Amino acid sequence: MRVRHKPWAKGKLDRYPDIVIPVPKDYSGEWHDAFHREAPLHVEIGSGKGQFITGMASLYPDINFVGIEMHESVIVTALEKCLDQQLDNVRLINEDARGLTEFFAEDEVDALYLNFCDPWPKSRHEKRRLTYSTFLAQYEYVLKKGGVLNFKTDNQGLFEYSLESFSKYGFTLQNISLDLHHSQMKNNVVTEYEEKFAEKGQRIYRCEAIASE
Amino acid sequence: MRVRHKPWAKGKLDRYPDIVIPVPKDYSGEWHDAFHREAPLHVEIGSGKGQFITGMASLYPDINFVGIEMHESVIVTALEKCLDQQLDNVRLINEDARGLTEFFAEDEVDALYLNFCDPWPKSRHEKRRLTYSTFLAQYEYVLKKGGVLNFKTDNQGLFEYSLESFSKYGFTLQNISLDLHHSQMKNNVVTEYEEKFAEKGQRIYRCEAIASE
Repeated sequence: MRVRHKPWAKGKLDRYPDIVIPVPKDYSGEWHDAFHREAPLHVEIGSGKGQFITGMASLYPDINFVGIEMHESVIVTALEKCLDQQLDNVRLINEDARGLTEFFAEDEVDALYLNFCDPWPKSRHEKRRLTYSTFLAQYEYVLKKGGVLNFKTDNQGLFEYSLESFSKYGFTLQNISLDLHHSQMKNNVVTEYEEKFAEKGQRIYRCEAIASE
Repeated sequence: MRVRHKPWAKGKLDRYPDIVIPVPKDYSGEWHDAFHREAPLHVEIGSGKGQFITGMASLYPDINFVGIEMHESVIVTALEKCLDQQLDNVRLINEDARGLTEFFAEDEVDALYLNFCDPWPKSRHEKRRLTYSTFLAQYEYVLKKGGVLNFKTDNQGLFEYSLESFSKYGFTLQNISLDLHHSQMKNNVVTEYEEKFAEKGQRIYRCEAIASE
Protein backbone atom coordinates (compact mmCIF):
# COMPACT_ATOMS: atom_id res chain seq x y z
CA MET A 1 0.00 0.00 0.00
CA ARG A 2 1.28 3.48 -0.84
CA VAL A 3 1.10 5.39 2.41
CA ARG A 4 1.11 9.15 2.47
CA HIS A 5 2.71 10.21 5.72
CA LYS A 6 0.35 12.12 7.98
CA PRO A 7 2.31 13.73 10.84
CA TRP A 8 -0.92 14.52 12.65
CA ALA A 9 -2.19 10.94 12.62
CA LYS A 10 -0.57 9.83 15.88
CA GLY A 11 -2.09 12.74 17.77
CA LYS A 12 -5.55 12.00 16.42
CA LEU A 13 -5.34 8.30 17.24
CA ASP A 14 -4.31 9.19 20.79
CA ARG A 15 -7.36 11.39 21.23
CA TYR A 16 -9.74 8.41 20.87
CA PRO A 17 -8.49 5.79 23.35
CA ASP A 18 -11.99 4.30 23.59
CA ILE A 19 -11.77 3.33 19.91
CA VAL A 20 -8.02 3.02 19.24
CA ILE A 21 -7.07 0.84 22.18
CA PRO A 22 -3.76 2.08 23.62
CA VAL A 23 -2.65 -1.17 25.32
CA PRO A 24 -4.49 -4.00 23.55
CA LYS A 25 -3.09 -6.81 25.71
CA ASP A 26 -4.90 -5.30 28.70
CA TYR A 27 -8.12 -6.58 27.10
CA SER A 28 -6.82 -10.08 26.35
CA GLY A 29 -9.57 -12.50 27.34
CA GLU A 30 -11.91 -9.61 28.16
CA TRP A 31 -12.54 -7.81 24.89
CA HIS A 32 -16.24 -7.60 25.66
CA ASP A 33 -15.22 -4.99 28.28
CA ALA A 34 -13.87 -2.76 25.51
CA PHE A 35 -17.32 -2.86 23.91
CA HIS A 36 -19.32 -2.79 27.15
CA ARG A 37 -21.33 -5.77 25.94
CA GLU A 38 -21.13 -9.52 25.30
CA ALA A 39 -21.19 -10.29 21.56
CA PRO A 40 -19.31 -12.47 19.05
CA LEU A 41 -15.80 -11.14 18.44
CA HIS A 42 -14.55 -10.76 14.85
CA VAL A 43 -11.01 -9.57 14.12
CA GLU A 44 -9.52 -8.25 10.88
CA ILE A 45 -5.78 -8.58 10.30
CA GLY A 46 -4.54 -5.61 8.29
CA SER A 47 -7.54 -3.29 8.20
CA GLY A 48 -5.95 -0.57 6.04
CA LYS A 49 -8.26 2.40 5.66
CA GLY A 50 -11.12 0.48 7.24
CA GLN A 51 -13.58 0.17 4.36
CA PHE A 52 -14.11 -3.53 5.04
CA ILE A 53 -14.36 -3.48 8.82
CA THR A 54 -16.66 -0.44 8.92
CA GLY A 55 -18.82 -1.97 6.18
CA MET A 56 -19.06 -5.20 8.15
CA ALA A 57 -19.75 -3.37 11.42
CA SER A 58 -22.56 -1.47 9.79
CA LEU A 59 -24.02 -4.65 8.26
CA TYR A 60 -23.68 -6.69 11.46
CA PRO A 61 -24.39 -4.41 14.44
CA ASP A 62 -24.63 -7.39 16.81
CA ILE A 63 -20.99 -8.35 16.34
CA ASN A 64 -17.97 -6.75 18.05
CA PHE A 65 -15.26 -5.96 15.47
CA VAL A 66 -11.57 -5.32 16.08
CA GLY A 67 -9.31 -4.10 13.26
CA ILE A 68 -5.53 -4.39 13.44
CA GLU A 69 -3.39 -2.11 11.28
CA MET A 70 0.19 -1.07 11.97
CA HIS A 71 0.41 2.03 9.76
CA GLU A 72 -0.89 5.02 11.70
CA SER A 73 -1.29 7.16 8.57
CA VAL A 74 -3.68 4.50 7.25
CA ILE A 75 -5.57 3.42 10.36
CA VAL A 76 -6.40 7.06 11.04
CA THR A 77 -8.74 6.92 8.03
CA ALA A 78 -10.41 3.85 9.56
CA LEU A 79 -10.86 5.85 12.76
CA GLU A 80 -12.43 8.72 10.81
CA LYS A 81 -14.88 6.30 9.18
CA CYS A 82 -15.91 4.99 12.60
CA LEU A 83 -16.47 8.54 13.85
CA ASP A 84 -18.32 9.69 10.71
CA GLN A 85 -20.60 6.65 10.76
CA GLN A 86 -20.95 6.73 14.56
CA LEU A 87 -20.15 3.02 14.76
CA ASP A 88 -20.02 1.77 18.33
CA ASN A 89 -19.05 -1.80 17.49
CA VAL A 90 -15.54 -1.23 16.11
CA ARG A 91 -12.28 -1.05 18.05
CA LEU A 92 -8.88 -0.53 16.43
CA ILE A 93 -5.37 -1.73 17.28
CA ASN A 94 -2.50 0.30 15.84
CA GLU A 95 0.10 -2.46 16.08
CA ASP A 96 1.79 -5.14 14.01
CA ALA A 97 -0.58 -8.12 13.72
CA ARG A 98 2.26 -10.38 14.77
CA GLY A 99 1.17 -9.54 18.31
CA LEU A 100 -2.15 -11.32 17.73
CA THR A 101 -1.63 -13.91 20.48
CA GLU A 102 -0.77 -11.16 22.95
CA PHE A 103 -3.83 -9.10 22.08
CA PHE A 104 -6.29 -12.00 22.29
CA ALA A 105 -6.59 -14.96 24.62
CA GLU A 106 -6.83 -18.60 23.54
CA ASP A 107 -10.25 -19.41 22.03
CA GLU A 108 -11.43 -15.80 22.38
CA VAL A 109 -12.14 -14.98 18.72
CA ASP A 110 -15.14 -16.20 16.72
CA ALA A 111 -13.91 -15.17 13.28
CA LEU A 112 -10.81 -13.73 11.62
CA TYR A 113 -10.60 -11.84 8.34
CA LEU A 114 -7.47 -11.80 6.21
CA ASN A 115 -7.98 -9.74 3.07
CA PHE A 116 -5.53 -9.13 0.23
CA CYS A 117 -2.38 -9.67 2.20
CA ASP A 118 1.04 -9.40 0.53
CA PRO A 119 1.54 -12.46 -1.73
CA TRP A 120 5.33 -12.64 -1.27
CA PRO A 121 5.60 -14.65 -4.50
CA LYS A 122 9.22 -15.74 -4.19
CA SER A 123 9.72 -19.16 -2.57
CA ARG A 124 12.41 -17.82 -0.27
CA HIS A 125 9.83 -15.44 1.20
CA GLU A 126 7.27 -18.17 1.93
CA LYS A 127 7.60 -17.65 5.70
CA ARG A 128 6.44 -14.05 5.35
CA ARG A 129 3.10 -15.02 3.80
CA LEU A 130 0.34 -14.54 6.35
CA THR A 131 -0.98 -18.02 5.52
CA TYR A 132 2.31 -19.71 6.37
CA SER A 133 2.06 -22.34 9.11
CA THR A 134 3.53 -20.17 11.87
CA PHE A 135 0.75 -17.62 11.32
CA LEU A 136 -1.89 -20.34 11.09
CA ALA A 137 -0.76 -21.52 14.51
CA GLN A 138 -1.50 -18.04 15.88
CA TYR A 139 -4.90 -17.94 14.19
CA GLU A 140 -5.77 -21.35 15.57
CA TYR A 141 -4.72 -20.27 19.04
CA VAL A 142 -6.98 -17.21 19.24
CA LEU A 143 -9.90 -18.79 17.33
CA LYS A 144 -12.57 -20.74 19.13
CA LYS A 145 -12.86 -24.39 18.11
CA GLY A 146 -14.87 -24.31 14.92
CA GLY A 147 -14.03 -20.61 14.47
CA VAL A 148 -13.62 -19.34 10.94
CA LEU A 149 -10.72 -17.70 9.15
CA ASN A 150 -12.15 -15.75 6.19
CA PHE A 151 -9.58 -15.27 3.43
CA LYS A 152 -9.73 -13.18 0.25
CA THR A 153 -7.09 -12.42 -2.35
CA ASP A 154 -6.75 -11.52 -6.01
CA ASN A 155 -3.44 -13.37 -6.23
CA GLN A 156 -3.80 -16.81 -7.82
CA GLY A 157 -0.46 -18.09 -6.57
CA LEU A 158 -1.15 -17.00 -3.01
CA PHE A 159 -4.59 -18.60 -3.11
CA GLU A 160 -3.23 -21.93 -4.36
CA TYR A 161 -0.53 -21.80 -1.69
CA SER A 162 -2.97 -20.85 1.05
CA LEU A 163 -5.48 -23.63 0.29
CA GLU A 164 -2.63 -26.13 0.56
CA SER A 165 -1.30 -24.50 3.71
CA PHE A 166 -4.73 -24.50 5.42
CA SER A 167 -5.26 -28.13 4.41
CA LYS A 168 -1.83 -29.28 5.56
CA TYR A 169 -2.24 -27.51 8.90
CA GLY A 170 -5.56 -29.23 9.53
CA PHE A 171 -8.05 -26.46 8.86
CA THR A 172 -11.17 -27.61 6.99
CA LEU A 173 -12.11 -25.64 3.88
CA GLN A 174 -15.58 -24.38 3.07
CA ASN A 175 -17.33 -21.82 0.86
CA ILE A 176 -14.51 -21.70 -1.67
CA SER A 177 -15.10 -19.24 -4.49
CA LEU A 178 -12.72 -19.03 -7.44
CA ASP A 179 -14.48 -15.98 -8.87
CA LEU A 180 -16.20 -14.21 -6.00
CA HIS A 181 -17.68 -11.32 -7.97
CA HIS A 182 -19.43 -13.75 -10.33
CA SER A 183 -20.60 -16.06 -7.56
CA GLN A 184 -23.78 -16.40 -5.56
CA MET A 185 -22.28 -15.02 -2.37
CA LYS A 186 -24.45 -12.35 -0.80
CA ASN A 187 -23.41 -9.49 1.50
CA ASN A 188 -19.81 -9.47 0.29
CA VAL A 189 -18.27 -6.35 1.78
CA VAL A 190 -15.45 -5.19 -0.50
CA THR A 191 -12.13 -3.75 0.59
CA GLU A 192 -10.45 -0.74 -1.08
CA TYR A 193 -8.14 -3.06 -3.03
CA GLU A 194 -10.89 -5.46 -3.98
CA GLU A 195 -12.84 -2.64 -5.58
CA LYS A 196 -9.91 -1.71 -7.81
CA PHE A 197 -9.00 -5.25 -8.77
CA ALA A 198 -12.54 -6.33 -9.50
CA GLU A 199 -13.11 -3.25 -11.67
CA LYS A 200 -10.19 -4.40 -13.84
CA GLY A 201 -12.01 -7.69 -14.35
CA GLN A 202 -9.53 -9.68 -12.25
CA ARG A 203 -10.80 -12.68 -10.34
CA ILE A 204 -11.19 -12.44 -6.59
CA TYR A 205 -10.63 -15.70 -4.70
CA ARG A 206 -12.20 -16.46 -1.33
CA CYS A 207 -12.42 -19.30 1.15
CA GLU A 208 -13.18 -20.05 4.76
CA ALA A 209 -10.88 -22.22 6.84
CA ILE A 210 -12.33 -23.79 9.97
CA ALA A 211 -10.11 -24.32 13.00
CA SER A 212 -10.05 -27.99 13.93
CA GLU A 213 -12.01 -29.28 16.87
CA MET B 1 -19.35 -37.84 -24.12
CA ARG B 2 -21.07 -38.45 -27.45
CA VAL B 3 -20.63 -42.14 -28.12
CA ARG B 4 -21.00 -43.59 -31.58
CA HIS B 5 -22.25 -47.14 -31.19
CA LYS B 6 -19.78 -49.70 -32.50
CA PRO B 7 -21.49 -53.09 -32.70
CA TRP B 8 -18.14 -54.78 -33.26
CA ALA B 9 -16.55 -53.33 -30.10
CA LYS B 10 -17.61 -56.10 -27.72
CA GLY B 11 -16.13 -58.77 -29.98
CA LYS B 12 -12.84 -56.95 -30.24
CA LEU B 13 -12.59 -56.37 -26.47
CA ASP B 14 -13.22 -60.10 -25.91
CA ARG B 15 -10.34 -61.02 -28.20
CA TYR B 16 -7.76 -59.37 -25.89
CA PRO B 17 -8.44 -60.83 -22.43
CA ASP B 18 -4.81 -60.19 -21.42
CA ILE B 19 -5.43 -56.43 -21.78
CA VAL B 20 -9.19 -56.06 -21.22
CA ILE B 21 -9.51 -58.06 -18.03
CA PRO B 22 -12.73 -60.17 -18.23
CA VAL B 23 -13.29 -60.67 -14.48
CA PRO B 24 -11.44 -57.82 -12.72
CA LYS B 25 -12.28 -58.93 -9.19
CA ASP B 26 -10.22 -62.08 -9.77
CA TYR B 27 -7.15 -59.87 -9.58
CA SER B 28 -8.20 -57.99 -6.45
CA GLY B 29 -5.13 -57.81 -4.22
CA GLU B 30 -2.98 -59.38 -6.92
CA TRP B 31 -2.96 -56.95 -9.82
CA HIS B 32 0.77 -57.41 -10.24
CA ASP B 33 -0.12 -60.87 -11.61
CA ALA B 34 -2.04 -59.23 -14.46
CA PHE B 35 1.16 -57.38 -15.40
CA HIS B 36 3.56 -60.25 -14.60
CA ARG B 37 5.65 -57.85 -12.51
CA GLU B 38 5.72 -55.92 -9.24
CA ALA B 39 5.35 -52.17 -9.84
CA PRO B 40 3.36 -49.22 -8.47
CA LEU B 41 -0.31 -49.48 -9.43
CA HIS B 42 -2.07 -46.40 -10.86
CA VAL B 43 -5.77 -46.47 -11.76
CA GLU B 44 -7.78 -44.08 -13.92
CA ILE B 45 -11.51 -43.76 -13.31
CA GLY B 46 -13.27 -43.09 -16.60
CA SER B 47 -10.56 -43.57 -19.20
CA GLY B 48 -12.65 -42.70 -22.25
CA LYS B 49 -10.71 -43.24 -25.46
CA GLY B 50 -7.51 -43.73 -23.50
CA GLN B 51 -5.43 -40.74 -24.55
CA PHE B 52 -4.47 -39.95 -20.96
CA ILE B 53 -3.72 -43.45 -19.72
CA THR B 54 -1.73 -44.46 -22.80
CA GLY B 55 0.17 -41.16 -22.64
CA MET B 56 0.97 -41.78 -18.98
CA ALA B 57 1.91 -45.42 -19.62
CA SER B 58 4.31 -44.34 -22.34
CA LEU B 59 5.84 -41.64 -20.12
CA TYR B 60 6.11 -43.90 -17.06
CA PRO B 61 7.01 -47.41 -18.25
CA ASP B 62 7.84 -48.51 -14.68
CA ILE B 63 4.27 -48.06 -13.47
CA ASN B 64 1.36 -50.50 -13.94
CA PHE B 65 -1.73 -48.65 -15.20
CA VAL B 66 -5.35 -49.79 -15.08
CA GLY B 67 -8.05 -47.83 -16.91
CA ILE B 68 -11.75 -48.21 -16.06
CA GLU B 69 -14.35 -47.25 -18.65
CA MET B 70 -17.87 -48.58 -18.88
CA HIS B 71 -18.68 -47.69 -22.50
CA GLU B 72 -17.41 -50.46 -24.77
CA SER B 73 -17.65 -48.30 -27.91
CA VAL B 74 -15.21 -45.88 -26.23
CA ILE B 75 -12.84 -48.21 -24.39
CA VAL B 76 -12.26 -50.09 -27.64
CA THR B 77 -10.33 -47.02 -28.86
CA ALA B 78 -8.20 -47.17 -25.72
CA LEU B 79 -7.51 -50.83 -26.51
CA GLU B 80 -6.49 -49.92 -30.06
CA LYS B 81 -4.06 -47.30 -28.73
CA CYS B 82 -2.48 -49.91 -26.43
CA LEU B 83 -2.09 -52.31 -29.37
CA ASP B 84 -0.77 -49.67 -31.79
CA GLN B 85 1.76 -48.40 -29.26
CA GLN B 86 2.61 -51.91 -28.05
CA LEU B 87 2.19 -50.81 -24.43
CA ASP B 88 2.65 -53.70 -22.01
CA ASN B 89 1.89 -51.68 -18.85
CA VAL B 90 -1.80 -50.95 -19.40
CA ARG B 91 -4.78 -53.10 -18.46
CA LEU B 92 -8.40 -52.10 -19.05
CA ILE B 93 -11.63 -52.76 -17.16
CA ASN B 94 -14.84 -52.43 -19.15
CA GLU B 95 -17.12 -51.88 -16.17
CA ASP B 96 -18.81 -49.14 -14.16
CA ALA B 97 -16.23 -47.56 -11.84
CA ARG B 98 -18.69 -48.00 -8.97
CA GLY B 99 -17.23 -51.48 -8.68
CA LEU B 100 -13.85 -50.00 -7.66
CA THR B 101 -13.74 -51.64 -4.24
CA GLU B 102 -14.52 -55.02 -5.80
CA PHE B 103 -11.82 -54.68 -8.44
CA PHE B 104 -9.10 -53.59 -6.01
CA ALA B 105 -8.20 -54.63 -2.46
CA GLU B 106 -7.78 -52.28 0.48
CA ASP B 107 -4.52 -50.28 0.25
CA GLU B 108 -3.65 -51.80 -3.14
CA VAL B 109 -3.53 -48.66 -5.29
CA ASP B 110 -0.71 -46.08 -5.25
CA ALA B 111 -2.50 -43.39 -7.24
CA LEU B 112 -5.90 -42.67 -8.75
CA TYR B 113 -6.73 -40.32 -11.62
CA LEU B 114 -10.09 -38.65 -11.99
CA ASN B 115 -10.21 -36.45 -15.07
CA PHE B 116 -13.06 -34.25 -16.29
CA CYS B 117 -15.87 -36.18 -14.68
CA ASP B 118 -19.47 -35.05 -15.05
CA PRO B 119 -19.98 -31.88 -12.93
CA TRP B 120 -23.65 -32.60 -12.09
CA PRO B 121 -24.16 -28.89 -11.33
CA LYS B 122 -27.61 -29.13 -9.72
CA SER B 123 -27.58 -29.43 -5.92
CA ARG B 124 -30.04 -32.30 -6.00
CA HIS B 125 -27.51 -34.30 -8.05
CA GLU B 126 -24.65 -33.76 -5.61
CA LYS B 127 -24.52 -37.46 -4.72
CA ARG B 128 -23.73 -38.32 -8.33
CA ARG B 129 -20.56 -36.23 -8.43
CA LEU B 130 -17.54 -38.50 -8.35
CA THR B 131 -16.02 -36.37 -5.60
CA TYR B 132 -19.02 -36.85 -3.29
CA SER B 133 -18.14 -38.40 0.06
CA THR B 134 -19.42 -41.89 -0.76
CA PHE B 135 -16.98 -42.04 -3.69
CA LEU B 136 -14.16 -40.57 -1.61
CA ALA B 137 -14.71 -43.44 0.84
CA GLN B 138 -14.12 -45.90 -2.01
CA TYR B 139 -10.99 -44.07 -3.16
CA GLU B 140 -9.62 -44.00 0.37
CA TYR B 141 -10.31 -47.74 0.73
CA VAL B 142 -8.34 -48.80 -2.34
CA LEU B 143 -5.57 -46.20 -1.94
CA LYS B 144 -2.51 -46.93 0.15
CA LYS B 145 -2.03 -44.62 3.14
CA GLY B 146 -0.46 -41.51 1.66
CA GLY B 147 -1.71 -42.52 -1.81
CA VAL B 148 -2.69 -39.74 -4.18
CA LEU B 149 -5.96 -38.94 -5.92
CA ASN B 150 -5.14 -36.77 -8.96
CA PHE B 151 -8.07 -34.63 -10.03
CA LYS B 152 -8.54 -32.42 -13.09
CA THR B 153 -11.56 -30.53 -14.36
CA ASP B 154 -12.45 -27.50 -16.43
CA ASN B 155 -15.59 -26.91 -14.34
CA GLN B 156 -15.14 -24.16 -11.75
CA GLY B 157 -18.14 -25.17 -9.67
CA LEU B 158 -17.09 -28.81 -9.53
CA PHE B 159 -13.57 -27.81 -8.55
CA GLU B 160 -14.78 -25.57 -5.72
CA TYR B 161 -17.09 -28.34 -4.53
CA SER B 162 -14.39 -31.00 -4.78
CA LEU B 163 -11.76 -29.05 -2.82
CA GLU B 164 -14.29 -28.67 -0.02
CA SER B 165 -15.35 -32.29 -0.25
CA PHE B 166 -11.73 -33.56 -0.12
CA SER B 167 -11.01 -31.26 2.82
CA LYS B 168 -14.13 -32.23 4.75
CA TYR B 169 -13.44 -35.93 4.22
CA GLY B 170 -9.93 -35.58 5.60
CA PHE B 171 -7.81 -35.74 2.46
CA THR B 172 -4.87 -33.30 2.46
CA LEU B 173 -4.55 -31.06 -0.59
CA GLN B 174 -1.34 -30.42 -2.50
CA ASN B 175 -0.16 -29.15 -5.89
CA ILE B 176 -3.29 -27.12 -6.51
CA SER B 177 -3.33 -25.33 -9.85
CA LEU B 178 -6.08 -22.88 -10.75
CA ASP B 179 -4.83 -22.51 -14.32
CA LEU B 180 -2.91 -25.65 -15.19
CA HIS B 181 -1.97 -24.75 -18.75
CA HIS B 182 -0.34 -21.52 -17.58
CA SER B 183 1.39 -23.13 -14.62
CA GLN B 184 4.85 -24.55 -14.04
CA MET B 185 3.66 -28.16 -14.01
CA LYS B 186 5.76 -30.40 -16.21
CA ASN B 187 4.77 -33.67 -17.89
CA ASN B 188 1.06 -32.88 -17.86
CA VAL B 189 -0.55 -35.55 -20.04
CA VAL B 190 -3.72 -34.11 -21.53
CA THR B 191 -7.01 -35.94 -22.02
CA GLU B 192 -9.13 -35.65 -25.17
CA TYR B 193 -11.47 -33.19 -23.40
CA GLU B 194 -8.67 -31.19 -21.88
CA GLU B 195 -7.21 -30.56 -25.33
CA LYS B 196 -10.50 -29.11 -26.58
CA PHE B 197 -11.21 -27.00 -23.49
CA ALA B 198 -7.69 -25.60 -23.24
CA GLU B 199 -7.71 -24.66 -26.93
CA LYS B 200 -10.76 -22.51 -26.24
CA GLY B 201 -8.74 -20.66 -23.60
CA GLN B 202 -10.73 -22.12 -20.69
CA ARG B 203 -8.94 -22.67 -17.40
CA ILE B 204 -8.07 -26.20 -16.37
CA TYR B 205 -8.10 -26.83 -12.60
CA ARG B 206 -6.03 -29.53 -10.94
CA CYS B 207 -5.20 -30.78 -7.47
CA GLU B 208 -3.90 -33.79 -5.62
CA ALA B 209 -5.68 -35.15 -2.57
CA ILE B 210 -3.68 -37.35 -0.21
CA ALA B 211 -5.39 -40.18 1.64
CA SER B 212 -5.00 -39.71 5.38
CA GLU B 213 -2.57 -41.82 7.38
